[in-house]
Amino acid sequence: MNIKTYIHDIGVKALAASRKMAVLATRQKVAIVKAMADGLEARREEIIAANKADLEAAAAAGMSGPMLDRLTLTDARFRAMTEGLRTVAALPDPVGKVIKRTTRPNGMRIEKRRVPLGVVAIIFESRPNVTADAASLCIKTGNAVILRGGKEAVRSNKAIADALQAGGAEKGMPQDAVQFIEVTDHKAVNELVGLAGYVDVVIPRGGERLVRAVVEHARIPVLKHYKGVCHVYVDKKARQAQALKILDNAKCQRPSTCNAAETLLVDRAIAKTFLPKVGAWAAKKGVALRGDETVREYVPAALPATEEDWYAEYLSLTLAVRVVDGVGEAIDHINTFGSHHSDAIVTEDAAAAERFLDEVDSAAVYHNVSTRFTDGGEFGMGAEMGVSTDKFHARGPMGLEELTSYKWVVRGEGQLRG
Amino acid sequence: MNIKTYIHDIGVKALAASRKMAVLATRQKVAIVKAMADGLEARREEIIAANKADLEAAAAAGMSGPMLDRLTLTDARFRAMTEGLRTVAALPDPVGKVIKRTTRPNGMRIEKRRVPLGVVAIIFESRPNVTADAASLCIKTGNAVILRGGKEAVRSNKAIADALQAGGAEKGMPQDAVQFIEVTDHKAVNELVGLAGYVDVVIPRGGERLVRAVVEHARIPVLKHYKGVCHVYVDKKARQAQALKILDNAKCQRPSTCNAAETLLVDRAIAKTFLPKVGAWAAKKGVALRGDETVREYVPAALPATEEDWYAEYLSLTLAVRVVDGVGEAIDHINTFGSHHSDAIVTEDAAAAERFLDEVDSAAVYHNVSTRFTDGGEFGMGAEMGVSTDKFHARGPMGLEELTSYKWVVRGEGQLRG
Repeated sequence: MNIKTYIHDIGVKALAASRKMAVLATRQKVAIVKAMADGLEARREEIIAANKADLEAAAAAGMSGPMLDRLTLTDARFRAMTEGLRTVAALPDPVGKVIKRTTRPNGMRIEKRRVPLGVVAIIFESRPNVTADAASLCIKTGNAVILRGGKEAVRSNKAIADALQAGGAEKGMPQDAVQFIEVTDHKAVNELVGLAGYVDVVIPRGGERLVRAVVEHARIPVLKHYKGVCHVYVDKKARQAQALKILDNAKCQRPSTCNAAETLLVDRAIAKTFLPKVGAWAAKKGVALRGDETVREYVPAALPATEEDWYAEYLSLTLAVRVVDGVGEAIDHINTFGSHHSDAIVTEDAAAAERFLDEVDSAAVYHNVSTRFTDGGEFGMGAEMGVSTDKFHARGPMGLEELTSYKWVVRGEGQLRG
Repeated sequence: MNIKTYIHDIGVKALAASRKMAVLATRQKVAIVKAMADGLEARREEIIAANKADLEAAAAAGMSGPMLDRLTLTDARFRAMTEGLRTVAALPDPVGKVIKRTTRPNGMRIEKRRVPLGVVAIIFESRPNVTADAASLCIKTGNAVILRGGKEAVRSNKAIADALQAGGAEKGMPQDAVQFIEVTDHKAVNELVGLAGYVDVVIPRGGERLVRAVVEHARIPVLKHYKGVCHVYVDKKARQAQALKILDNAKCQRPSTCNAAETLLVDRAIAKTFLPKVGAWAAKKGVALRGDETVREYVPAALPATEEDWYAEYLSLTLAVRVVDGVGEAIDHINTFGSHHSDAIVTEDAAAAERFLDEVDSAAVYHNVSTRFTDGGEFGMGAEMGVSTDKFHARGPMGLEELTSYKWVVRGEGQLRG
């Protein structure tokens, strides 16, 4: 098979399908997404069998425990997948909504109206449920979607995609509105992200290496975050008991997520009183600390931190700790070493809080709240496609609205430009 | 000079300046932009002298009439430049505006707030006034800007940029908020558009070749349009006199612009009555027609059109003409051959008009209005940075709001994720 031709053909078909998707009424899209859920249930056995085959191949190839776990479609995960589709079906449709309406002095009426993006490509790793989540969000917003999963999950993903297509087709979904790339060769990704004129955006979801490879080859817009190096800054005016609770939640509630805290910044004015509490908490919760000299003075168990630690996304129970001279130095540290994802200040000082919220250049900034809330569901979007740390198009959690664009619709009676 | 180091250094300085710009109050930004206008007036003689030097070098290098004209800073153009700055100073500031505000069930307050993009790079050709226009829009929205003009205008652009910096500095503009790239080597552009982490967006303004080169090398988001292949479709239910006026305005009012019409589509049902009128109009206005067989039947003066004509952006008094079977075929033609810029239908049939407005996949779609209105000023934005035909971030005319992003600001009392 010629990969270039194969991928180009997928792009052509997706573009044609996107034109049909764009003009579907909301009730049609709702019916299609519900039918996709029915489609999954109808093919449950095939999907579970495909997943078993993936798991066997992965085990044979020596895949490790947590990776193997992420690949597994349990009963609960299968149910969550179909429930997720029905939730998305019920969310409000942003397409067609008029964002702005004006009448110009010459009488022409201008309407800025939400439309689908067109063709959305998603490149993801491991977890097969992303196939269903991503497809449902794209279809609900009138887009066509091209799915490319990791090769370890190719049988599961293909079975799910087939079921979604079959289900959607029952309610009139265009054949090529959901396409799955079966070729596991890495060249397919490079071709896909070069499809300018066919694909409107690519969303890579996975490790930093995957995302960097996509950005390197892309000739189309990319919605992404490389990593989440999130901070909790504890100010001298913090309620220290509250600060410890927020730190614990941000670090320990789910350490492997992009909105988990990786670095704790402590105001020098409270180093003496707060750092010993951090040491005790870390010992109790099994958190490994890496600190600067002042930190190690108060927490002897902490290993010495190097500059690399300030950039590190541990995704585990390791925490970098640094002492800073107040909110100004905390902001500088975060803007210099952070990843512009999610950062929190804990303080009772309103002025310090507002300065932090204003000056930290991140997608989400928090005052006396855990960083773990950066999430489409927690923000009330109903579902999410991922999180963007770019300042372009979408920033922070991406839900349905972030999968749309707009067009300018102008009506008049023969207006001419003078 | 090492170009890579030179450009990298500009990026580092722009990023630092952008952090200072982002927190300026509206009144400070207004004062700065007004002072930039004063700065231009204070250095009027130096700027005009630099422009004379550019013109002499260009003439010596054999530059032709219209190109030389675009390069010339006349008195009127100088005045327009300073007036433009004062207009931008007076426009409403989008930064700080709260787009959305919600309180979640756990009590945390979420605010989606407009912020500057950060660092904006602009790559443009010829007309030196773009230096002032682009800088003022970026500064008014709290961004830092990096300017790269064409080499034929380098002395004029440099003199203008110096004057803007000196003027702005009087009111506290950070030194590096406006930077001009003096190196004319093309490698500088490739380095500039690779500055991921320093530059947030690049806006190429110029011919298709320039834009394609930028997209090819960019590792950061690009806001752009390649070309404007705009259509006027005259439906069988059109008022033909009105259709001719709209066609005349779209084609002849300023043929060199991206929103001028390049292709006329005529409903087969009125070919016999309408095409002879088009022929008479073209003869009178000096418009060269390229038509399909049916067109040439009714307009013998038309040359035969090839498929290339359907893709062509003539930017001159040439017009491609095609007969189509109703609104459906018109939509297909536009979506296939057009550039997704600006397209108009002329009809009294409301259903046909709505179908056209819904299904034509362009930044601006018009019913009984000339395509020439796709412009920030005409849309009421007050000024424009360019026009985007992408569906990402900004579509259509780009004004101040399109130079902003947003951040999520979350306030609470110790909320933790469960």
